[in-house]
Amino acid sequence: MMPSSRVRVGVVGCGEHSAESLLPSLWALPSVQVVAVCDNVEIALKRAAEKFPEAHTYVDFRGLLDVGGVDAIIAAASPQVHHEVALASLQRGIHVFVEKPPTVTTVELANLASLAKRTGLVTGVGHNLRHATASLELQKCIAHESFGSPICMDMWYFASKPVGDRWGLKSALRSFLLSHANHALDLMAFHMGSVESITALATQGPQGTIAMSAQLEFKSGAVGNVLVTTCAPHFSLSLSVVGDQRTVAHMDGLRGLSQYGRLGDQKRWGRKWTERTLDSGFEHAGYQTELELFFDAVRGHRQMHPTFEDELAVYRLMDDIERQVSSRAEMSGVTSR
Amino acid sequence: MMPSSRVRVGVVGCGEHSAESLLPSLWALPSVQVVAVCDNVEIALKRAAEKFPEAHTYVDFRGLLDVGGVDAIIAAASPQVHHEVALASLQRGIHVFVEKPPTVTTVELANLASLAKRTGLVTGVGHNLRHATASLELQKCIAHESFGSPICMDMWYFASKPVGDRWGLKSALRSFLLSHANHALDLMAFHMGSVESITALATQGPQGTIAMSAQLEFKSGAVGNVLVTTCAPHFSLSLSVVGDQRTVAHMDGLRGLSQYGRLGDQKRWGRKWTERTLDSGFEHAGYQTELELFFDAVRGHRQMHPTFEDELAVYRLMDDIERQVSSRAEMSGVTSR
Amino acid sequence: MMPSSRVRVGVVGCGEHSAESLLPSLWALPSVQVVAVCDNVEIALKRAAEKFPEAHTYVDFRGLLDVGGVDAIIAAASPQVHHEVALASLQRGIHVFVEKPPTVTTVELANLASLAKRTGLVTGVGHNLRHATASLELQKCIAHESFGSPICMDMWYFASKPVGDRWGLKSALRSFLLSHANHALDLMAFHMGSVESITALATQGPQGTIAMSAQLEFKSGAVGNVLVTTCAPHFSLSLSVVGDQRTVAHMDGLRGLSQYGRLGDQKRWGRKWTERTLDSGFEHAGYQTELELFFDAVRGHRQMHPTFEDELAVYRLMDDIERQVSSRAEMSGVTSR
Amino acid sequence: MMPSSRVRVGVVGCGEHSAESLLPSLWALPSVQVVAVCDNVEIALKRAAEKFPEAHTYVDFRGLLDVGGVDAIIAAASPQVHHEVALASLQRGIHVFVEKPPTVTTVELANLASLAKRTGLVTGVGHNLRHATASLELQKCIAHESFGSPICMDMWYFASKPVGDRWGLKSALRSFLLSHANHALDLMAFHMGSVESITALATQGPQGTIAMSAQLEFKSGAVGNVLVTTCAPHFSLSLSVVGDQRTVAHMDGLRGLSQYGRLGDQKRWGRKWTERTLDSGFEHAGYQTELELFFDAVRGHRQMHPTFEDELAVYRLMDDIERQVSSRAEMSGVTSR
Repeated sequence: MMPSSRVRVGVVGCGEHSAESLLPSLWALPSVQVVAVCDNVEIALKRAAEKFPEAHTYVDFRGLLDVGGVDAIIAAASPQVHHEVALASLQRGIHVFVEKPPTVTTVELANLASLAKRTGLVTGVGHNLRHATASLELQKCIAHESFGSPICMDMWYFASKPVGDRWGLKSALRSFLLSHANHALDLMAFHMGSVESITALATQGPQGTIAMSAQLEFKSGAVGNVLVTTCAPHFSLSLSVVGDQRTVAHMDGLRGLSQYGRLGDQKRWGRKWTERTLDSGFEHAGYQTELELFFDAVRGHRQMHPTFEDELAVYRLMDDIERQVSSRAEMSGVTSR
Repeated sequence: MMPSSRVRVGVVGCGEHSAESLLPSLWALPSVQVVAVCDNVEIALKRAAEKFPEAHTYVDFRGLLDVGGVDAIIAAASPQVHHEVALASLQRGIHVFVEKPPTVTTVELANLASLAKRTGLVTGVGHNLRHATASLELQKCIAHESFGSPICMDMWYFASKPVGDRWGLKSALRSFLLSHANHALDLMAFHMGSVESITALATQGPQGTIAMSAQLEFKSGAVGNVLVTTCAPHFSLSLSVVGDQRTVAHMDGLRGLSQYGRLGDQKRWGRKWTERTLDSGFEHAGYQTELELFFDAVRGHRQMHPTFEDELAVYRLMDDIERQVSSRAEMSGVTSR
Repeated sequence: MMPSSRVRVGVVGCGEHSAESLLPSLWALPSVQVVAVCDNVEIALKRAAEKFPEAHTYVDFRGLLDVGGVDAIIAAASPQVHHEVALASLQRGIHVFVEKPPTVTTVELANLASLAKRTGLVTGVGHNLRHATASLELQKCIAHESFGSPICMDMWYFASKPVGDRWGLKSALRSFLLSHANHALDLMAFHMGSVESITALATQGPQGTIAMSAQLEFKSGAVGNVLVTTCAPHFSLSLSVVGDQRTVAHMDGLRGLSQYGRLGDQKRWGRKWTERTLDSGFEHAGYQTELELFFDAVRGHRQMHPTFEDELAVYRLMDDIERQVSSRAEMSGVTSR
Repeated sequence: MMPSSRVRVGVVGCGEHSAESLLPSLWALPSVQVVAVCDNVEIALKRAAEKFPEAHTYVDFRGLLDVGGVDAIIAAASPQVHHEVALASLQRGIHVFVEKPPTVTTVELANLASLAKRTGLVTGVGHNLRHATASLELQKCIAHESFGSPICMDMWYFASKPVGDRWGLKSALRSFLLSHANHALDLMAFHMGSVESITALATQGPQGTIAMSAQLEFKSGAVGNVLVTTCAPHFSLSLSVVGDQRTVAHMDGLRGLSQYGRLGDQKRWGRKWTERTLDSGFEHAGYQTELELFFDAVRGHRQMHPTFEDELAVYRLMDDIERQVSSRAEMSGVTSR
């Protein structure tokens, strides 16, 4: 099924995010060839075609899939389109990576995950944060023997949009969860392991903004909390993990890491990591790395993470949050504004 | 009742913390005169007496109180002693400031608060963190009209001790709550207002350490969470508050503040505050400031905060936490190790 | 001279730096079309050709230039090649941008600058640091009326390579100057204006490393100093500028800016700038921005900076440094190791 | 000569700086007893007496010295008074520590140093910055075998006052040198060793402010530069040292240290030091530590540093700077405004 040379890729969705982060990452990857680009917005399609002069152009992803000749699909559109593209790809035996969120509902995602399992195809969801350079360095810290087992984690995740509902969802809360809470929950599970249970509390800010606190118990017995809001002036995040060997690791944004408690007896001295001064390109925020892992998986006949199956766990937590928040009268406005 | 000149102070407890932070703060304050020092450890008493050559010395605080001649008592010992000293002081019409925790139980504190109310005396609890220079600057940020109303807060509070139980309490959880959770909860309430409800989750680390996540709903409708642990290599803390005008304020330790969202249209520019390079003395961590406020209150016949009454709200939250954590079977070890 | 549509570009030199930073920047720029790529190393040429399937390939830049059809040349090779490519391009009426250093000697550069002036063609030298996002933000700070006139500047610039000589120069000092001192001096002049005089002092570290201090008097009357070394573990830099309105601006690496003294009466509060958390691509380090400016200049029939003429001032400072350092006996080892 | 118990100290000068930093440091030190305080300003003397109820009070330091009964003098006044007090103390066999600057002229200081040598008495100059906690930690980094030999250093030192002349000196430049350049030069020599030669350049800002760049060659062969100005909004400083084992150590203000290049193969990871969150007292800025060292020296019959002799080297550098700056016509305004 795999050509001896480069993986042939079709891109569905060439809008702003795709053009800014995914297309240049695809261009940069060796052994990957973008052979088809698709968008129903003319200008977006034209610009993508200019960047990939050898690629065929499509306004409808079904045309792209029906013509064949692609080994894998990268989709960056709305969750509704992601769902359709993923379904059609898997049905045709084509590996598929979709930006988050992959679907609107958990049932849809469960069906996709089940289909992926039956076909053995490679699936991926675009949680770039866990593939960011700093996040991978953080994981190395935590995984190091001397760190001990993580026993607690705190995280805040502040965004400035979206406000209100999007994707025609008629629920500001679901829009919020599918836009941000999933990123935050995926990142927590990436560093702390599976979540046993979650308790959520949410409030509304002005103009459709939301602030949510979630408290997590991990299967390992560790505890954690995360504060997610869309009421901030710009996107930023911070997370701290404590290990049971009296060690602490912090990630401040995606650029700074610090760690305390592993350097023996030198009081108040810790370790710090800083990104390269001249760092350029698309590895920093994880976009290129996640695609690289996806194509490595395609070529190596194995899975990369998060798969659709992995993402299902996040969706179940989001459903829990939605139930808890909606059941509180004063939050009803959030769920159907 | 008040002398026309300096407030006459008796200090009960001249141990390490008192000698390092409270006694030099008292010495530095104008209009305050330490006229009596008390400790049942000879060397501690001797050292204090050397620093305050005009002060009378006592090994028993009752002697100090019975002799009279003091306008206010500063107590820094165990919660059991704080309780007794506070009770005896209030009964004798003497203003009293105690280090945290003021008592072991909520009932004891309620009685003290009630007695304080009846007598109209000034009471204070040593939550120095809210009086730290950075915390006061943070409060100014939050209180500024342009910040809007706080809608959420995240905090982590990492300490390295105590481990297991202390003060003869036979409960590692209660020891943990009285040593740290009260500091964290007081600081949250200081910046966010009264707490409506709390949900807690705790786990044990090795050697009697504890990690606890608490999720708070504030009376204002805002939400928040805090992670408190004693499993860290040293003491540090960080808190972030989001205002509903798309503003964010961060306090990193007690030295750095930053704020975003109030400078108009300059994208990615925020404000930062840094402590004086040559800063010296006891204001930084709040010790001198809280005592100064206490004596100002004594002199001005008004209250300073937190009073015993204020602290009562924190104790009720701690009782809630204790109930929730203890009711989970797997946590029983935490409550009675 | 200019085609109505995209600028047709030929790239001379497709090695590591070109492939990592320049080629992706060129690909990302709208209105630019890479029509020819040239390298005498087969694998480098093959990789570049794969990324630009429509481009013609050359192993000798003369072939590329002789065939014609390019509006501008981007060169990234050795200073000797830069010189030859620039000369040949200008002689053929082709705009040219070269990575630093453009030549080995000042005479060669003076000739190029003179030729550029006569032809009116656009020239550019790759001093990416002044085009880095942070550096541009810093310049805005300094240029703001409230900053006043810069009266002094301090900078350190620490690199880890090269060690000893390179490019066949037989002078570790000249190699050092052409590799790093020019970057540092260009950045200082960018923020402070032209240099009146320079005083230098250098020493050798182990394994061909060099440390140099240069003291500058600017034409404006301002003073400054810079410390440049190749003995550091990795590349980093920091600069601070003081304005005569009691203002200070700092740039820490290429990610953090802070400024004090412009916020009125709020003591100890300053401003800070932080790069976007998810920032990706080639603007951060200035590579894409400098090329964008170059092509804007080509299209707009104007100059971008630094031109060859601008760079000439830097070369004259480097010659001054070389003379001063070489005249000290103990430094003779530096100049010809 | 030394009493078996506490060192008896007389303090000359109880003004703002003394009251804020020196008196509390003296109070905090065990084995030190302030037995006399002196100031010709009534309110300052009264306040000091209140803090040290057992101390005798004087309005003239000669009275204090003539009465006797002190083992050591701490002086914090003008350089003219420092000189007189130091002279009189040494003549009477009394150890003496003076705030910087110890004298106005180098000749005066040389005489004091010579007298100190003949008498064998302990002398000290108040360069608190080298005794600051961060500075001592930095020195440990640099002194560590793995750091190698320091080969270069960069420093900036930004202050906001004084402006113009002070102490009746009729020279803004000398006032500037005695107020700040000496602190900066002492700190550089503390970390890098003796200075072989210095080259200076200065300019004037508005309202009597000065900016000066100094370039240093150290006796070790290392090079360095420092930028000192009084045109900043507040006091701050930063220094960086590079070791010849590809190591770098930075001190940012007196709170943050970082170091790169000693952790083996972990690219981009360094070490960092942060002051205690709850740090209080007078060690941070070096005031208590320098006095502690002075009294240890007094008790142990040895010297502490910087002695008057050590300070003499700094004065000679300042004289060099003054000559160089004054010899430039355009700077004449600086030397006698």
